[in-house]
Amino acid sequence: MDAGEFRRLWNEIAPIGRAESGGYVRFSWTEPDLDLRTWFHAQSKLRGLRYEEDRNGNLYAWWDPERELVIDPDAPHPHKAILTGSHFDSVPHGGAYDGPLGIVSAFLAVDQLRADGANPKRPIGIAAFTEEEGGRFGVPCLGSRLMTGVIDPDRARALTDPDGVTLEAAMRAAGAEPDLLGPDPERLERIAAFIELHIEQGRALDGGESSVAVATAIWPHGRWRLTFTGEADHAGTTRLPDRRDPMLTFAFAVLAARKEARLAGGVATVGRVEVEPNATNAIAASVTAWLDARAPDEAVLSEILSGFESKVSERAGRDGTRAAIVRESESPVVEFDASLRDRIAAVLGGAPVLPTAAGHDAGVLSAQVPTAMLFVRNPTGVSHAPGESASDEDCAAGVDALAAVLRDLAC
Amino acid sequence: MDAGEFRRLWNEIAPIGRAESGGYVRFSWTEPDLDLRTWFHAQSKLRGLRYEEDRNGNLYAWWDPERELVIDPDAPHPHKAILTGSHFDSVPHGGAYDGPLGIVSAFLAVDQLRADGANPKRPIGIAAFTEEEGGRFGVPCLGSRLMTGVIDPDRARALTDPDGVTLEAAMRAAGAEPDLLGPDPERLERIAAFIELHIEQGRALDGGESSVAVATAIWPHGRWRLTFTGEADHAGTTRLPDRRDPMLTFAFAVLAARKEARLAGGVATVGRVEVEPNATNAIAASVTAWLDARAPDEAVLSEILSGFESKVSERAGRDGTRAAIVRESESPVVEFDASLRDRIAAVLGGAPVLPTAAGHDAGVLSAQVPTAMLFVRNPTGVSHAPGESASDEDCAAGVDALAAVLRDLAC
Repeated sequence: MDAGEFRRLWNEIAPIGRAESGGYVRFSWTEPDLDLRTWFHAQSKLRGLRYEEDRNGNLYAWWDPERELVIDPDAPHPHKAILTGSHFDSVPHGGAYDGPLGIVSAFLAVDQLRADGANPKRPIGIAAFTEEEGGRFGVPCLGSRLMTGVIDPDRARALTDPDGVTLEAAMRAAGAEPDLLGPDPERLERIAAFIELHIEQGRALDGGESSVAVATAIWPHGRWRLTFTGEADHAGTTRLPDRRDPMLTFAFAVLAARKEARLAGGVATVGRVEVEPNATNAIAASVTAWLDARAPDEAVLSEILSGFESKVSERAGRDGTRAAIVRESESPVVEFDASLRDRIAAVLGGAPVLPTAAGHDAGVLSAQVPTAMLFVRNPTGVSHAPGESASDEDCAAGVDALAAVLRDLAC
Repeated sequence: MDAGEFRRLWNEIAPIGRAESGGYVRFSWTEPDLDLRTWFHAQSKLRGLRYEEDRNGNLYAWWDPERELVIDPDAPHPHKAILTGSHFDSVPHGGAYDGPLGIVSAFLAVDQLRADGANPKRPIGIAAFTEEEGGRFGVPCLGSRLMTGVIDPDRARALTDPDGVTLEAAMRAAGAEPDLLGPDPERLERIAAFIELHIEQGRALDGGESSVAVATAIWPHGRWRLTFTGEADHAGTTRLPDRRDPMLTFAFAVLAARKEARLAGGVATVGRVEVEPNATNAIAASVTAWLDARAPDEAVLSEILSGFESKVSERAGRDGTRAAIVRESESPVVEFDASLRDRIAAVLGGAPVLPTAAGHDAGVLSAQVPTAMLFVRNPTGVSHAPGESASDEDCAAGVDALAAVLRDLAC
């Protein structure tokens, strides 16, 4: 595909949700997200694809020449669909590509297959999953977790954003129906494979010959909410020995998480903090922070967490504070379907294979559906920040690769 | 004075700006502050006191039997006024007493002098200073700093609150006139002494016989804005050696500030933090925090800061981040007027004398006006938090003490 052709479609969504920082703020069910959903609907109609929104707010555009067979849940394997796509939502001030690249590339891959006169033997679907980043309601891959039944719909409805708005209220305000949230086994049953194209999150492809790689596995990872509670008091008049300052315990925890991760060979990050009352001249009453930790395998992840917990608990004792560490989500290691991965790598002429430490809807779906991922080169390696980048040429090569994979699997 | 009488007037303002936490949110020029200003005006009228708002938004209620002399700037010393009072504004979720106790007590002290048939030889004024806590615009004692000319009016007008609203816009929205902000030497010239009654911020009086103490000095103290800048990136996919995570430098700085203060014999606190983009799965791009440091003398304060700066700068080098430490305000040691202090302590029958590590408008005014402070016992010692407390009996004793001081100085 021509790089200019990629750029033309890409430019249609480039302004949506772009902040002055150059980063994107596209939280689920907010105005930029609704604008992107409208755009998805328009793109489906433009191509005569069947538009559908599932019970969990995920969107689909179906190219289903054998629709009558597809909607039969007892249909044999050859008529199950090949699904591709990704997500629209962003982390706060994230990059342009993480998510939307997989959706735009999917529409362009369908265009390319049609231009080539391809004749699908199975339906091909384009998906846009909801709240993949957890940037608004705190649980990543929320749309795919609901679909696969790994999060309780009542818990999901009650999730709140930083302004205290529940998912339920946010969906209603956006004209969606939160009462229907929940597992969707019949839909999953009709998917033969899910292929997610995604911007690379690292620089493994930089300097090499390939624009595109195939994923091997997703590191196990989790999020923990850390709540440090002390006693608010005057920053000047309270003697140091009388203080119960949770900021100290929090600061220690940040450094301890990093140290445990380094020693064990994983990664750990504290990127989000909320302080009460957050006043310059008052000792904090409480500090809430979130720990994100990941590792090559689950034993290493456990080792990081247990070391972290014991050191933080000991420090809280010395600071006269309380430290609560609550797991908000944990994702086991995901090994993508090996035969699918090998088949795709072969179709792409021996594309490199890479593991990733990032979570994806593809990882969630892989528990119930054969799943694979393609990564498009990101020369800066930056992810979840405005510096994330990909050349139009590499994005066009990604479309070519995705079209080749869809042709191989569906045609 | 009867404790019940104190409680009756106190109850009039108790609900204003009270949050569900039990603490108070009374930021300058917001609705609770405007309600308190309206209450001040009503109390002035009720007593036939002359109400006045100065060019800096500070309020006065004047009992000025010799007004014609007072308004002459060349009037001799005996006709200068005795000013008392404090401030209405609070830190976020602060206690009830810090500030308002000095204003309510001043009205009750005037009532008591009148009930006793006192005959002032000088005007007695009650003041309510604006934005003493710096809880909204970040600069403490803003009203008295403007009045004494230690902050530039243009800088003051451009100060912003956390929502980005300037002081100028906030004053206009409240119907006040920001164009007039600036030094007010003629007003200061007409004040013979300023006496600020304040809740004790510590527990020095707890368990003793005295309800009221007299201040000796205010520790030198300052605020520094700490900006740690790194590079936002993905919390999973960025290798630890590739990270430039400002949260690590920030965490180190919190612990370093505490350690330097402990070794030198002062106090240091980080109570306010802002993180960008503040996302669970993104390495922070920047962390901004505020350091509050205080010490018994200026040499110790300098020692704390220089140790802190060198350690933080070294750590930033190791983290690949940048650390900027900018002084936002610094107040030198304040020794209250010794003869005024001794005279007051004698009037109060040998009340205890105490230093304080908290800043006050009295400290700012002391550079240009003889100034003293009275402290009313606070059994919990808590300050800037809802646990701050004083018994009605001690508050009534505070009114008695203030009335005695005003009688001695003005009658």
